[in-house]
Amino acid sequence: MAEIAYETALIVGVGGGLSASLARLFKKAGMTVALAARRAPELAPLAREVGGSAFACDASNHAEVVKLFADVEATVGAPDVVVYNASYRTRGPVIELVPAEVEKAISVSAFGGFLVAQEAVKRMLPQKHGAILFTGASASVKGYAQSAPFAMGKFALRGLAQSLARELSPQGIHVAHVVVDGGIRSAARTVPSDKPDSLLDPDAIAQSYLSLLQQHRSAWAWEIELRPWVERF
Amino acid sequence: MAEIAYETALIVGVGGGLSASLARLFKKAGMTVALAARRAPELAPLAREVGGSAFACDASNHAEVVKLFADVEATVGAPDVVVYNASYRTRGPVIELVPAEVEKAISVSAFGGFLVAQEAVKRMLPQKHGAILFTGASASVKGYAQSAPFAMGKFALRGLAQSLARELSPQGIHVAHVVVDGGIRSAARTVPSDKPDSLLDPDAIAQSYLSLLQQHRSAWAWEIELRPWVERF
Amino acid sequence: MAEIAYETALIVGVGGGLSASLARLFKKAGMTVALAARRAPELAPLAREVGGSAFACDASNHAEVVKLFADVEATVGAPDVVVYNASYRTRGPVIELVPAEVEKAISVSAFGGFLVAQEAVKRMLPQKHGAILFTGASASVKGYAQSAPFAMGKFALRGLAQSLARELSPQGIHVAHVVVDGGIRSAARTVPSDKPDSLLDPDAIAQSYLSLLQQHRSAWAWEIELRPWVERF
Amino acid sequence: MAEIAYETALIVGVGGGLSASLARLFKKAGMTVALAARRAPELAPLAREVGGSAFACDASNHAEVVKLFADVEATVGAPDVVVYNASYRTRGPVIELVPAEVEKAISVSAFGGFLVAQEAVKRMLPQKHGAILFTGASASVKGYAQSAPFAMGKFALRGLAQSLARELSPQGIHVAHVVVDGGIRSAARTVPSDKPDSLLDPDAIAQSYLSLLQQHRSAWAWEIELRPWVERF
Repeated sequence: MAEIAYETALIVGVGGGLSASLARLFKKAGMTVALAARRAPELAPLAREVGGSAFACDASNHAEVVKLFADVEATVGAPDVVVYNASYRTRGPVIELVPAEVEKAISVSAFGGFLVAQEAVKRMLPQKHGAILFTGASASVKGYAQSAPFAMGKFALRGLAQSLARELSPQGIHVAHVVVDGGIRSAARTVPSDKPDSLLDPDAIAQSYLSLLQQHRSAWAWEIELRPWVERF
Repeated sequence: MAEIAYETALIVGVGGGLSASLARLFKKAGMTVALAARRAPELAPLAREVGGSAFACDASNHAEVVKLFADVEATVGAPDVVVYNASYRTRGPVIELVPAEVEKAISVSAFGGFLVAQEAVKRMLPQKHGAILFTGASASVKGYAQSAPFAMGKFALRGLAQSLARELSPQGIHVAHVVVDGGIRSAARTVPSDKPDSLLDPDAIAQSYLSLLQQHRSAWAWEIELRPWVERF
Repeated sequence: MAEIAYETALIVGVGGGLSASLARLFKKAGMTVALAARRAPELAPLAREVGGSAFACDASNHAEVVKLFADVEATVGAPDVVVYNASYRTRGPVIELVPAEVEKAISVSAFGGFLVAQEAVKRMLPQKHGAILFTGASASVKGYAQSAPFAMGKFALRGLAQSLARELSPQGIHVAHVVVDGGIRSAARTVPSDKPDSLLDPDAIAQSYLSLLQQHRSAWAWEIELRPWVERF
Repeated sequence: MAEIAYETALIVGVGGGLSASLARLFKKAGMTVALAARRAPELAPLAREVGGSAFACDASNHAEVVKLFADVEATVGAPDVVVYNASYRTRGPVIELVPAEVEKAISVSAFGGFLVAQEAVKRMLPQKHGAILFTGASASVKGYAQSAPFAMGKFALRGLAQSLARELSPQGIHVAHVVVDGGIRSAARTVPSDKPDSLLDPDAIAQSYLSLLQQHRSAWAWEIELRPWVERF
């Protein structure tokens, strides 16, 4: 495995299979791993497995994010890799959507990304070193019918990532956005036996996150789009 | 002037020159015009000029938007054209941004667009007729350094517009997004005499909004990008 | 109808219904119209109808394009509007494609566009006035399976249009690219009665070309995408 | 280094530093490497260094491409990785461009990519295994002023890559397009000492090509954009 220049990773929005795959692969690559999610107890088994720490945090709440970074810093040191993986969606015909739910979709999917990035950058900027990775979805680049709230959140997160890439790359901070274009394989969502590998394997996605961290600064990608070989696009 | 199939236009976010140009051109095209902004008194002169009505409304507040549409409906009838023109921005290095201001930028620039669209669609859907036009900016498609909040708001608004276009076009509702890529000429921002027409003339922008309303449903545009002839892109 | 600042239009690649609609609408807008296609005799009825002239020209042949512009100039004067509407396609699984046909698809769909634009610009540049409109397709922005040759030709034409827009807009020449995203209604391709307006009406497309010509230079569009209200995108 | 599932790589368009870096890295990753360029003698030193074979081929000539693949197959076996790296450009104000040079730019940059891909696919399809990588440039996604020919060639190549990705991914063939957005460091083009890593290191670019080959088919990227950390975009 190519060496990577990072030591401590914080993964925010742990829950699905992707965060677990990232935690395991980052650990394998030699990094110390911290995990954050709204419900910390659920993180305990994974934290134990990767020898890492787990923190409770609502990423859309400013005070909680500030506290998260202070706690992570005190526990394992300031992270030089931060992954923002949280999102929330609500869907349906536009006239049936509940405004408070729409607000939450934007807040968790995008505003939380800003809060987490801001705290991360405060610690990376003095070192002129670090990486911030945002997890996107098909909805990051395509607004689907009956899914305006998720499109709003994911488009906004992509705008944040692109703006930060322009601002921070010349400061030595690698900002990247990964468009996960397809369903992710999980315990709840298994691959049909007649369509092998038709859902994204979270370990395979994590591999591309690691590849981004292995890139030399003379040839950084700010975005990469991943989809199963048989996915229509 | 080609005939248009719309009768009543509501312009939300009146303030800058664009909204005034839209109001005058829509009036000239035969439409009844209603205007909404946070500070209604400021709208009075324009409302008088175009023989229209003015309403106070914070577009990012659900209850106020609901009331706005009820009031407009009671006064001039349900609008079959709605323009969302409100936005708010804050800028600076990411570590200096104030979270509450970032939240407001997203809320006014994007969430308000959802609230207004939802109320508009409730009235257009039974008629299978209407048009909703969103005003975008350079930041709708490009996240600039030190301007993450505006990128987040404008990317999100574009995601909303694209999602609604996919959902509502087949219902007879024309949804379009206009990317205004450059500065708009105004009293406060005049064109340098050695660079004629280097700022977008609000009357010229309004003309393209009207062109969208004149399109036949067999050949609708969902997006158009406008910039001065001498603007770099 | 808003006044337009152009006098003489040359439409290259006449054949389908779009060119006929453009010719009629441009005539109606007060322009003198010249038509060019590989087989001039087929143009005769349309030329008579719009009181214009017809010329034979293989747009992918340099000498013929040079001669076309000399002939047009001698007959009706140098055109200040030029529309490039020619294309050729071949399709099938990549391993079954005939290289000479692929070459022809690129040559007619894109290289011919360059040849025509070059001759047009030679005449427009001294006047710092003119407009060049390119007709794109769904394949201009999306490479479909089993249709690589058309994607190559149409992507290339879009690259040409964008490059020329950047180069020539500041010289007073409006360059625009129209993405026609859907099938065009024609005698051979009629609209299903249960899906009204599900094919683009060529008259409706032509209206958007005219709108581009009516734009003020402070707010030019370089691209617009048109599709039927019920088209999936 | 992660294992890769490919054995024999053919790199077409060898010359610049990128092809040499690819050859060395692919060799290091365990692949047999074949090189092709218009002037084979110039490839001899690199071929010796990587223990590979060198072939003369004008990639824009159908017969030569057919012969190239027959020769490669006879020498080292059918390649399961093919990289298309050839391009040609001419630039200047559009009215000064020489049509034959424009034709050559399209032919070498794009049509040659089709010819090479077609021969590659003929051999990969029966195995339902293989990878085809196309090298793009800034001009692949942005048409610069005074550079229409390169934009035409590179846009067309991207259209080809996207079409083939849609057609061939479900057949087990990974098609990807790498946008190299910036200047590549070379003997002729050195990095300013006050701006370290401001040109793309060809070894760093090659690393991302290898990462694409290491991707699991459940999470393939069809495109990745690389640029130096300090490059404006």
